[in-house]
Amino acid sequence: MASLNSPFISIATLALMVGLAGSSALGQQSAQNESGKTRTLGVVLFSGFELLDVYGPLEMWGNVGPQIKIVTVAAEKGPVASAQGPKTVADYSFEDCPPLDLLLVPGGFGVIPQLNNEALKKFIRTRTEKTEITMSVCNGASILAAAGILDGRPATTNKAYWGLATGPGPNVKWVKEARWVDDGDIVTSSGVSAGMDMSLHVIARLFGKQTAEGIANGTEYEWHSDPQWDPFAKLHGLTAGGDE
Amino acid sequence: MASLNSPFISIATLALMVGLAGSSALGQQSAQNESGKTRTLGVVLFSGFELLDVYGPLEMWGNVGPQIKIVTVAAEKGPVASAQGPKTVADYSFEDCPPLDLLLVPGGFGVIPQLNNEALKKFIRTRTEKTEITMSVCNGASILAAAGILDGRPATTNKAYWGLATGPGPNVKWVKEARWVDDGDIVTSSGVSAGMDMSLHVIARLFGKQTAEGIANGTEYEWHSDPQWDPFAKLHGLTAGGDE
Repeated sequence: MASLNSPFISIATLALMVGLAGSSALGQQSAQNESGKTRTLGVVLFSGFELLDVYGPLEMWGNVGPQIKIVTVAAEKGPVASAQGPKTVADYSFEDCPPLDLLLVPGGFGVIPQLNNEALKKFIRTRTEKTEITMSVCNGASILAAAGILDGRPATTNKAYWGLATGPGPNVKWVKEARWVDDGDIVTSSGVSAGMDMSLHVIARLFGKQTAEGIANGTEYEWHSDPQWDPFAKLHGLTAGGDE
Repeated sequence: MASLNSPFISIATLALMVGLAGSSALGQQSAQNESGKTRTLGVVLFSGFELLDVYGPLEMWGNVGPQIKIVTVAAEKGPVASAQGPKTVADYSFEDCPPLDLLLVPGGFGVIPQLNNEALKKFIRTRTEKTEITMSVCNGASILAAAGILDGRPATTNKAYWGLATGPGPNVKWVKEARWVDDGDIVTSSGVSAGMDMSLHVIARLFGKQTAEGIANGTEYEWHSDPQWDPFAKLHGLTAGGDE
């Protein structure tokens, strides 16, 4: 029970540890196979980031266990206000951010003024050269596109603001109907909530599907594990008549 | 396009404003009917809170529009570390927190040491006497139970740690199979992700179903709008053989 008193042991993590979360304890075993390596996941923050773009993924990644260390980074360290108001503390600035194995770029309307932020784009571009996987949620893909790292590659983004979100990437192979697009070292997801499904997919890639399922079950989340599941493409008029 | 440059206009909010998010513009209309009143939603933070317990609901509430103002509150104002690491800034302390119309109490393993925190329980108890609706996510219900405000009332909580979560409430009418339990001025939800579905339900109560659907569509979230939808009760062994 001692671990229950640790503020850094979460419900889903403990569920995995004691084998309760998944339909079997294989998730735990799969994670243990990777136990020699801790990956650092950096989350980029900027004023007006969309809350769930950041925290849906962090709920999932934060329950992988000690194999994942989460750090937050922004132009300047300190509080960063979200689109919805609440402020998250950036642990690091672009200058002192430690090496990152994984990078997550959220979206939100706060993205728009960032499209001309050369320091932000440089940070994402240079870090992506060294990350194992760089991920975006929603129109976080607009920043990746503006940084030039999606050129010629398949990617997806927010479905309600497709034109706005894809505008910065005229040379990107945008995929209209996809919950997420896995292009190896870059994985982009659709709008807001899709970041949770995408994150579980990437967790499954790195730690095994049982680990991802264990986290989904522990967080009582219905994981859409099929990247083709995307009712919102049609809802927002992207697929009803073929190409818009 | 000016509003696009505001960091406090989110994608789903704008989707509602321009009538893109829902299947009709009724969500917008419903919200306008309430435009004369701004409700303040207070979110209680404590060390080791579960990220999605807070931010799933805040994504939904934060996209209602100007009818909802979100404030964060903790024993002391300033950064509060989540179970997964990232820190959120508490805008207010228990002492200087403004009047609250709505109160949200998250869960996480950080709940356990709070069960004996008289200041926290007093804050929640006295504020709940004046709120329109007090909500909990996951084992946030344990705190409500420990504060005595669930006695004799129906409520639900986390399904993976049912015994642990319900322990502080021997006189609560715990409901094993429910995504959330709406008991009027107190609404409790199941584990972690369930807070999103519960929040959309309460938003529908206050602002109309079309508003809730518009937010779900704008955030590309598949809302489980049926409170009886709870596959996790069975998954975690609460319903397989009837009473556990």
